[in-house]
Amino acid sequence: MNTMGYLLRLTTFGESHGPVVGGVLDGFPAGFRPDLAQVRLWNARRRPGSTPLGTERQESDEPEFLSGLSQGLTTGAPIAFVIRNRDQRSQDYDTLNQVFRPSHADYTYWAKYGQPPAPGGGRASARETAVRVTAGALALQWLQARGVTLAAWTENIGGVHYPCPPEPPPEDMIYASPTRCPDPDISARMASLVEQVRERGDSIGGTVRCMVTGLPPGLGEPLYGKITALIGQALFSLNAVRGVDFGVGFDGLSRTGSELNDAFIREGDTIRTLTNHSGGVQGGITNGMPLVFRVLFKPAATIAQSQQTVNLKGEPTHVEGRGRHDPCVVPRAVPVVVALTALVLMDAWLLYSARYKVDEKFREHFENKKL
Amino acid sequence: MNTMGYLLRLTTFGESHGPVVGGVLDGFPAGFRPDLAQVRLWNARRRPGSTPLGTERQESDEPEFLSGLSQGLTTGAPIAFVIRNRDQRSQDYDTLNQVFRPSHADYTYWAKYGQPPAPGGGRASARETAVRVTAGALALQWLQARGVTLAAWTENIGGVHYPCPPEPPPEDMIYASPTRCPDPDISARMASLVEQVRERGDSIGGTVRCMVTGLPPGLGEPLYGKITALIGQALFSLNAVRGVDFGVGFDGLSRTGSELNDAFIREGDTIRTLTNHSGGVQGGITNGMPLVFRVLFKPAATIAQSQQTVNLKGEPTHVEGRGRHDPCVVPRAVPVVVALTALVLMDAWLLYSARYKVDEKFREHFENKKL
Amino acid sequence: MNTMGYLLRLTTFGESHGPVVGGVLDGFPAGFRPDLAQVRLWNARRRPGSTPLGTERQESDEPEFLSGLSQGLTTGAPIAFVIRNRDQRSQDYDTLNQVFRPSHADYTYWAKYGQPPAPGGGRASARETAVRVTAGALALQWLQARGVTLAAWTENIGGVHYPCPPEPPPEDMIYASPTRCPDPDISARMASLVEQVRERGDSIGGTVRCMVTGLPPGLGEPLYGKITALIGQALFSLNAVRGVDFGVGFDGLSRTGSELNDAFIREGDTIRTLTNHSGGVQGGITNGMPLVFRVLFKPAATIAQSQQTVNLKGEPTHVEGRGRHDPCVVPRAVPVVVALTALVLMDAWLLYSARYKVDEKFREHFENKKL
Amino acid sequence: MNTMGYLLRLTTFGESHGPVVGGVLDGFPAGFRPDLAQVRLWNARRRPGSTPLGTERQESDEPEFLSGLSQGLTTGAPIAFVIRNRDQRSQDYDTLNQVFRPSHADYTYWAKYGQPPAPGGGRASARETAVRVTAGALALQWLQARGVTLAAWTENIGGVHYPCPPEPPPEDMIYASPTRCPDPDISARMASLVEQVRERGDSIGGTVRCMVTGLPPGLGEPLYGKITALIGQALFSLNAVRGVDFGVGFDGLSRTGSELNDAFIREGDTIRTLTNHSGGVQGGITNGMPLVFRVLFKPAATIAQSQQTVNLKGEPTHVEGRGRHDPCVVPRAVPVVVALTALVLMDAWLLYSARYKVDEKFREHFENKKL
Repeated sequence: MNTMGYLLRLTTFGESHGPVVGGVLDGFPAGFRPDLAQVRLWNARRRPGSTPLGTERQESDEPEFLSGLSQGLTTGAPIAFVIRNRDQRSQDYDTLNQVFRPSHADYTYWAKYGQPPAPGGGRASARETAVRVTAGALALQWLQARGVTLAAWTENIGGVHYPCPPEPPPEDMIYASPTRCPDPDISARMASLVEQVRERGDSIGGTVRCMVTGLPPGLGEPLYGKITALIGQALFSLNAVRGVDFGVGFDGLSRTGSELNDAFIREGDTIRTLTNHSGGVQGGITNGMPLVFRVLFKPAATIAQSQQTVNLKGEPTHVEGRGRHDPCVVPRAVPVVVALTALVLMDAWLLYSARYKVDEKFREHFENKKL
Repeated sequence: MNTMGYLLRLTTFGESHGPVVGGVLDGFPAGFRPDLAQVRLWNARRRPGSTPLGTERQESDEPEFLSGLSQGLTTGAPIAFVIRNRDQRSQDYDTLNQVFRPSHADYTYWAKYGQPPAPGGGRASARETAVRVTAGALALQWLQARGVTLAAWTENIGGVHYPCPPEPPPEDMIYASPTRCPDPDISARMASLVEQVRERGDSIGGTVRCMVTGLPPGLGEPLYGKITALIGQALFSLNAVRGVDFGVGFDGLSRTGSELNDAFIREGDTIRTLTNHSGGVQGGITNGMPLVFRVLFKPAATIAQSQQTVNLKGEPTHVEGRGRHDPCVVPRAVPVVVALTALVLMDAWLLYSARYKVDEKFREHFENKKL
Repeated sequence: MNTMGYLLRLTTFGESHGPVVGGVLDGFPAGFRPDLAQVRLWNARRRPGSTPLGTERQESDEPEFLSGLSQGLTTGAPIAFVIRNRDQRSQDYDTLNQVFRPSHADYTYWAKYGQPPAPGGGRASARETAVRVTAGALALQWLQARGVTLAAWTENIGGVHYPCPPEPPPEDMIYASPTRCPDPDISARMASLVEQVRERGDSIGGTVRCMVTGLPPGLGEPLYGKITALIGQALFSLNAVRGVDFGVGFDGLSRTGSELNDAFIREGDTIRTLTNHSGGVQGGITNGMPLVFRVLFKPAATIAQSQQTVNLKGEPTHVEGRGRHDPCVVPRAVPVVVALTALVLMDAWLLYSARYKVDEKFREHFENKKL
Repeated sequence: MNTMGYLLRLTTFGESHGPVVGGVLDGFPAGFRPDLAQVRLWNARRRPGSTPLGTERQESDEPEFLSGLSQGLTTGAPIAFVIRNRDQRSQDYDTLNQVFRPSHADYTYWAKYGQPPAPGGGRASARETAVRVTAGALALQWLQARGVTLAAWTENIGGVHYPCPPEPPPEDMIYASPTRCPDPDISARMASLVEQVRERGDSIGGTVRCMVTGLPPGLGEPLYGKITALIGQALFSLNAVRGVDFGVGFDGLSRTGSELNDAFIREGDTIRTLTNHSGGVQGGITNGMPLVFRVLFKPAATIAQSQQTVNLKGEPTHVEGRGRHDPCVVPRAVPVVVALTALVLMDAWLLYSARYKVDEKFREHFENKKL
C-alpha cells in the first residue's frame, strides 16, 4: 500500500532516520526530457529550512536518480531515486522512544506493526513527502508541456485568511513569501501569528488552496476513479491532512442550488460555465474550468510543551518535544500539494488517453462534436 | 474504474433508466449468514419516497441476489445482485436530452464519452447508490458481528446545525426522523427549511456526520491506503459530495496543537485518548477511539427554476427541471454514507488480517504487548 | 479475484446451477458499435451441444445485456450481461454432493471455503467460460476493426496431431469441423479417438493452437505485464489448462540458439523476422510477427467409470459420473481461448495507447523512426 | 507494470549497466527476522560466475538494504534494496548499440519506447533477476518458517533429461552440481553438452522443475488468481521463459482421464491423493499435495556466431555477440524460479489469511471439518 496511481505509479520507501528515503515512479512515458533543475527547485521549496518559519533541520534534499533516464530522456522504464538523510541527530529523539507522543503515529504504528516508536517518526515522518515532491515535479513538467498551470498557496493560517482569487497568483509571488501566501500584508500577519505560536512552544494549522487551469474536459474515471476521489485519496494520504473540499465547499453550506449551479455558456469554440462554484468538476470529471480545491492541515503534533501520555509499559508519564520541528507545516506543505495533484492529474490524463485517444475515427467524431 | 476496494471489491453497473442497476461484491469471506431483511431495510431507508422530504419517484428497490449465496450462507464466490428499475417515466426527461443541465454531469459525460445526456442521468444518476447500499448492508453486518457500531446522521441542512454528540445517537432515533437528524426540534427546523426551499423550486445541501465505535486499533494501510485516504476516496466517489473532514476538521482552524493534541491515558487494559479531536485516526491508522468524520453534500443540481445553459448544438437556451427530484439529498444520503463506510472498513479489516493475524506467534507477542 | 485485466476489466459471477452466470466488462471505450449477432455466434460455438462430440446438456446461452449499451453503441459505462441457466437437471448431481470427485475442484473448494461440493461444480464449473466468451467476442470485434485476425483451433487430441500451419486457417474451416481441427482427415481421426474414449466412459485431453496476425509491435508491459505473462495468467485461470508455451515452445528443447534465433530483415517500410520461432514476442513485447502459442487441456475429470475417493465424513468410497459431460473438452475450449486472448490483447492495446499515443509529437518522432 | 503481487508486492527498477538494480518489497508483515546470510547465499547462486558453465562477468551481487528493517526485524514498512553494478565493461557492447540483435528485446523496446538498444540489454537484461532473487529469498524464509520446502532443479538441458523424482532432491545436491541437476551422471552429460555448445559459439536451453511440499490446501484465489495463473504470470515475466506446465503437463497428452485422475484417500487426519498427476492443484487451488511444475527456458539469444539482422537505419547487416554471456542460462535460472515461486506463494498465503483466518469461529468450524 506504499504505491499510489494506476498507470503512473509512485512507490515510496524509506524512514526518516534511515540512510535514505526514495521512490520508484513507474509508467512515465518514454521520450520526455525532464528539467532536473526544476526538480531540485521543488525539493528546495519543501525541504526543512526552506522558509524562516520552519524547522531548523538542514537537508540538502537533492534526489539522486538511479534508473529510468538515459541521455536526459525518460526511457519508459521505472524512474528510481533516493534522497539521502544527512542530518539525522537521532539523539534528539532518544527519550521519545519509549513513550507514545500525543497525536503522533507512534501508538497506531505500535498497535499495527508491534514496533516501538521510531526516531523522528520512522515511516510516518513527513520527510517521506520529499519523495512525493520529487516525483510530482516530473509529473508537473509533463502537464506543463501540455499547457497546464498548477498553483497552490497558503490560504489560511490559524484563521488569518487570504480569499481565493479568480486566477491563480504567479508562482514567484507565492515562493517569495515565507508563508507561501502571495499577499504580502496577509502573509505578514500569518508570519506574525506563527512567531507568537512558536514562542509559546505551540503549533498552528491552516489550509492550502490549489487551482489548476488548462485542463481538458474529460479527466476522471467514474465511478471510483472520479477526479475528486483520486485527489481526495492522494491528499488524505498525508498524515497532517484532516479535510478536503472542492469549489465553494463547506463555505456554501447555507446556499441553494439556484445560487450554486454553474450556468453553461458558449465562448467561441468551447463551452464554459459562467461561475465555477463546482471547482471545475461535475460528475467526478473535469469540465475544462479551473480545478479548485482546499486542503486542511492540522497543527503539527510536536510542541515544546509538557503533555500527558503513556509509555510502552502502560505507565502514565509526560513528554515534551525537543527536536527541531515546525510551528506551522502549512508553508512547506504547499509544494507537497502541488506534487500530489500533479501525480494524480498526469495519471488521470494517461487513463483518459488510453480509452479516448485510441481510436482516430472516434476522436474525429468526438472533436467535431465540440461545436 | 467501476470497482472499489482491495480485498472486498464492489463492482457496480447499470444506468438510472436501463432495466437494472446492480453490483458484484467479490472477496466476501465464506460461511457468513447475512440477514437479508436488514439489507432490504437499508435499501428502504435510501430509496426514493423513503422520507416525506424526498423525490416522489417510487421504487421498491429490493435487491435480487444472483450468486454467491447458498442455503443462506456466503460461499466465498462473488455475490451478484440486481435492483430493477420499475418506475422510469423517462418522458419526464425528454426535453432534457438535448441540453446540458447546469451542474449535472451531462456535459462532462458528453465531453468524455461522446454520449448525449442520458435520461435521468444515466450512469451518473444517484440511483446507482442503491447498489452501494445493498453491498454496504452486507459489510455492515459483518462488522456488527465483530462488535462495531456504525452510525451516520444529518448534522446540517442549509446552516441548521445539530452539534456532534459524544456518543452515536441510537439508530431508531435517526430513522424516525424525516431529516435523519436525531434531535426532534432541530430536525423540525431542518424540515421547515427544506419545505421553504422546495416551494421556491430550489434545493439545499448539508452535511452528514458519521461515527464508528468498536474498531480495533490498526486499521488502515500506510501510506496510500490510510483509513482517511480510503474513506476520502469512497465518499468523493459520490457526485454530490464536495467535502470531507475528520475529527474537529475545518472547525479547528484557529486552534493550536496544544489545544487539539489528544493526550494518551491508560484505562484498564487498553490505551485511549482523553479527547478525540483526531477523530480516531493517527498516521492514517485507527487508534481504537471512535472514528469520526463529516461529509458535505452540495444542493441537488436539479431545480424547478429556469436556468441559462447551452444545447448540444452549442446554442444558448434555458432549462427547467420537471422530473421528480429531491429538494435536499442529505436525508437519503445518510444510509449511503453508512454503506460506503462499512465497505471501506471491512476491506481495511481484511487487509489488516492478512498480515497481522497470519502468524499466531506474532499475534500472541503482539497481544501481550497490549499492556 | 474474479476480475481480470487492467484497463479492460472483466468481472465474472455466477455458479453452474444458480439462476445465471454473468459478467461486467468495464473500461470498454465509448462509441463502438458491437455486432451482437457475432457475440451470439461465439456463444453458440462454445455452448454445450455445439459439437456432436460434446456434452448433451442444452443451453441456448444467449447473453442478455443489462447496461453499457445505448442505441447500439457502447457508452463507456460498464457492460453487464447475464446468461440464464435453463437446463439444470441438478438431480443428476445429487449423489455427487457428498463425495469429493477425483481431480475436480470439490475438495479444494471445500478446504478453502468450507463449502460442500456444489451441484455441477458451482463456481468451478466450466459453464463460467460462457461469460468469458461473451466478453471476449466484444473485444475481438474491437481488435478486428483495427486489422487484427485472431484464430484458434484444435492442434492435438490424445496424440493425434495437426501440425501448425504458417498462416492461420480460415475460420469457417475450423468451425465446420466437429473437432475444431481444420484438416478434415486429421479431424476425422481425432473424432474417432474421442468416440472410442467416450465408449469406454473415459475422457481425453489435447492442445489448442492460437495465432494472431496484424498486431502492432509494442504490445505488452514489462516486466510483469509482458504479453506472455498476461496471456499465461489468463489461460491458466481456466481449470482444465495445464500448460502453455509460445512459439516453438517445448518442441525446441534440443535446438540451439543459432537454430532458433529469428533474424531480422527489412521488408518495405517494416522490419520483420525471417523465421518466427519466438512466436511474435521478444522481451515480452509483440514484434509485429504473428503471435503464436499453444494451450494444453487435461482430460475432463468426470468419467463414467468407478473411481476411488473419500466422502465428506472422511470415509473411503467410490464415485461414478452420471451427468452429461464431455469426453473431450478441447473443441469447446477453442472459442474460450479466442475470447481470453482477445480480452488480453485489447487490454494490452489500451495500455499501450495510454502512454505511447498520448503525445502527438512523440508519436511523429516515433513513427518517423520506423524507417 | 514493474510490480508483481497483490498483498506482497515487489516493484523492481534499474538497468543492466546503470549504477544499480533494485527493488521495493511492500507488504511483508512486521516482526519477522530474516537471515540475511541466506539472502546472500541465494544471490551467490544466481550471480554471474556462480557456476563454471556461466558467463564470466563477475558481480558480487550483495544487496544493500535501505529501509524496512530495524534491529534485524521487518517493520511492516517497504523493504527497499539495491544491488550495485560493479563490472559493467559497456565497451563490449558498443557495436551492438546500432543494430537489433536477433531474438533480443532490442527491436521491441525500440518499437515500444523509441529507445536505441541499451548496453547489455538495459531494462530487459537478465541482471534484473538479481532483484527477484533477493526479494524471493526473504519470502522463502517466511514460508520455511511455516514448514514449506521449496526446491527447483535443472531437469533438462538440450534434451538431456533428469526424470522427476517423487520427492524433492536435497538442496545441497542441487547446488553442488554446476548444472543444478542433482544426479551426478546426468549432470555430467548436461555439462558436456553445454561445453560443446559453447565451443561452437552457440547456446542451448532447457527446463527447470520445481516442487513445493508442505503447503496447506486452499492457496489460490479463483478465478483469475488461481495459483496456476499467478505462477504462470510470474514465470512468463522472465524474458527467456517460453513454456510452463503443471503436474504431468504436456507429457500426459496421450493419456486419458481414468489414467490421470488423482484418487482421494484418507491418511490419518488428512485427505490426500494416491497419485499427483495434477501437480498439487485442482480448480486453481492447492490441495495439500506437492505443487509441481516445469519451466521452459529458450537458448540464450546471444551467440558468438555471425547473424543476419538490420540496423536502426533499416539497412541489412550482421551482428556477432562479443560480450560475456551464458551458453546455457538454465543453471542460473534455478534460483530465479525458486524466488518467483516463493513470492507468489507467500502472496497467496497472505491472501488466504485475509479471508479465511479472520474469523475464529469460522476457523474452528472449518478445522473441525478436516475430518
